[in-house]
Amino acid sequence: MKKPPAHPKTAARTLDEALADICARCAPLPPERVPLAESLGRVLRETVCAPDDLPSFDRSAVDGFAIRRDDPATEFRIVDSLRAGDWKPRRLQPGEAVRIATGAALPGNGLQVVMQEDTQREGDLVRVLRRQASAHVRLRGEDLRQGQPLVRAGTRLEAGGLALLASIGHVEPLVSPRLRVLHLTTGDEIVPPQQTPRPGQIRDSNSILIRSLLRDWPCDVEHHHLPEDFQTAWRELDEGRAVNADMLLVSGGASVGERDFTRALLERLGFEIVFGQVKARPGKPTIFGVNGPRVAFGLPGNPLAHFVCFQLDVATALARLLGAEALPKFLRGKLAVELRDEPCPRETLWPARLDWTTNVPGLHPLAWSSSGDITCLAEANALLRIPPATTALAAQTEVEFLPCSALSYGRP
Amino acid sequence: MKKPPAHPKTAARTLDEALADICARCAPLPPERVPLAESLGRVLRETVCAPDDLPSFDRSAVDGFAIRRDDPATEFRIVDSLRAGDWKPRRLQPGEAVRIATGAALPGNGLQVVMQEDTQREGDLVRVLRRQASAHVRLRGEDLRQGQPLVRAGTRLEAGGLALLASIGHVEPLVSPRLRVLHLTTGDEIVPPQQTPRPGQIRDSNSILIRSLLRDWPCDVEHHHLPEDFQTAWRELDEGRAVNADMLLVSGGASVGERDFTRALLERLGFEIVFGQVKARPGKPTIFGVNGPRVAFGLPGNPLAHFVCFQLDVATALARLLGAEALPKFLRGKLAVELRDEPCPRETLWPARLDWTTNVPGLHPLAWSSSGDITCLAEANALLRIPPATTALAAQTEVEFLPCSALSYGRP
Repeated sequence: MKKPPAHPKTAARTLDEALADICARCAPLPPERVPLAESLGRVLRETVCAPDDLPSFDRSAVDGFAIRRDDPATEFRIVDSLRAGDWKPRRLQPGEAVRIATGAALPGNGLQVVMQEDTQREGDLVRVLRRQASAHVRLRGEDLRQGQPLVRAGTRLEAGGLALLASIGHVEPLVSPRLRVLHLTTGDEIVPPQQTPRPGQIRDSNSILIRSLLRDWPCDVEHHHLPEDFQTAWRELDEGRAVNADMLLVSGGASVGERDFTRALLERLGFEIVFGQVKARPGKPTIFGVNGPRVAFGLPGNPLAHFVCFQLDVATALARLLGAEALPKFLRGKLAVELRDEPCPRETLWPARLDWTTNVPGLHPLAWSSSGDITCLAEANALLRIPPATTALAAQTEVEFLPCSALSYGRP
Repeated sequence: MKKPPAHPKTAARTLDEALADICARCAPLPPERVPLAESLGRVLRETVCAPDDLPSFDRSAVDGFAIRRDDPATEFRIVDSLRAGDWKPRRLQPGEAVRIATGAALPGNGLQVVMQEDTQREGDLVRVLRRQASAHVRLRGEDLRQGQPLVRAGTRLEAGGLALLASIGHVEPLVSPRLRVLHLTTGDEIVPPQQTPRPGQIRDSNSILIRSLLRDWPCDVEHHHLPEDFQTAWRELDEGRAVNADMLLVSGGASVGERDFTRALLERLGFEIVFGQVKARPGKPTIFGVNGPRVAFGLPGNPLAHFVCFQLDVATALARLLGAEALPKFLRGKLAVELRDEPCPRETLWPARLDWTTNVPGLHPLAWSSSGDITCLAEANALLRIPPATTALAAQTEVEFLPCSALSYGRP
């Protein structure tokens, strides 16, 4: 087998160009129907409409006594008792009341429910002490009319959406498939985290980083470490597995060093390289390739670059494959403190902590000394987008940022 | 077996009182050491400090050529080639250069690295075309000095924190245990989601709601449905399992109806009832009990009340059991539109959607007609805290709110 050819040039992309390329070259994977219990985090691929009025019958909103709305009496004879689940239509007469539980179907129309707390019971009689303005009735169709859209295609299904689908019996929604992701790490200087590195070596932190970041996405991840020699790496690679993955991620080997073989590896696997550099810091040597419906990224090996490339490039591809809105939405917020930088010709994605506890949400830039600096990753929950050649931004300057994990508000 | 006794009164709590009670009566469960791969989402229960300088050796930040910083030459003889993982100390002489890969250990002190892009190679010689201000070296201890705290006790471990722990070889952190949660639903009117309800019946949506909300927490959930008759329910209950769960959640039966047996059930299981009502809407009939280290909640059966009680009461208890900061942090934001309400003597937790895409993040109150209204749950990502007796709040009014899911920014 010959040494792979020297790297052909691919024009470097701006970040916006790179993200647009990813959107254009990835397509939603075919959806599937799965049980509700497996749908959490999946993207709904059909718009679900209400099959019936919601609620589907007039229900009591409280525990109490149903009486006619037009009945001015204060003392009533209790003629029946209705629990949730009962279905006992009857025409109430003046002076009659029906004991009724929360959620139970009303026995007829034109009724109101007096809360138990507003009554006094004596055997078969009940005295109404107070009538509130509210009828305490949830009317049929009050929440939603039959045929109205309930949850729209493209929505990521979370707890509330799933509860809604359960309530209408839509128990096998059409959703995005789970993605098969293969993660390859490279580099002879990498040892597993439980091993003590010899001088010059470092521990693998990218595997758990990628695996943990992917936990927010519906996918199954496999990881393999490849040696740095291309021919040995190729022999060790399970080609079938690499070709069949929906997404292939290669950590390290994306740059121009003598042993950086990611581009050659992807090409030999049949990927067309769309771009090989992004004008962004960190994450300049980022490779993006496509092979039919499958996508691949070569990510610069440094952990901070990994984190940034994941939040931007990889997340965009994942969202697009799932059929959700894909382009990252940069939001606007204010710097809590001054930001100082050495000018860089590329734009910078600066790790930061978004703090909500102040009256105006503030963005705190975190210290980082290089793209290999991993200490800030324990705190970062946002990335600031800093224009090229910036040297200083005063506190309170408005900046663009991307939230990149759940807003941390002190609780898990 | 006798009918359970009538409900004794427990003074209703304000929301703040209820949350303070929960914090006071729950205690962190004993931590355990688990492998990193199982630590995602767990709460770190020890402060982890840097066992060594980070990085632990001077490393090249780029692919290029290492030369002496004090060497003014423009042409150099290449005397060695260093890959990441190599450890080959040597004293460089003037006019000498070492080919070096990103991440590789520098051969000595007083060196800088010239980027490959700034050089021209001819056989064993390399010509430096341009020297940048930066030495392109990551110095030992530049990120962190030995002994400095890296990740503090009480931190929820996410992707970045795990990568950091992996990089220092802290592969068995001391973390909160996974919680055992038992979820009981009650009510004879409830049928499984896949079943067509008879008139008066409704489908169970609380099981999948609770199960999905708990997916954000490190816990294992079991669910059982109990019949509405207390004696039958007690016979069907697996008492051992109910007593051994770290948290018992009972959906429905928390109110004052004739068949509402949650309080009696919890008492028979040995729980002390701390409170049985909260002055909040929705979610007034909320029961909280403790039994040694175990906690229990009786939640009003309506789905919206369920959602709200989970975000406030249950989440506070979960965070406290795990050893994290527990009290919910209400943030401040502005109403995007006017909010109108019928005055209520209790404070209201109003489902809303926090929209970040505008220049100033705006809170959009969602329509809800009763605590059984589930349609808004597909969209809600925040709860507004509205004071008692509010009738109208103009657009742009500042309100308190609790974010209650990941900020949705269009992507899953």
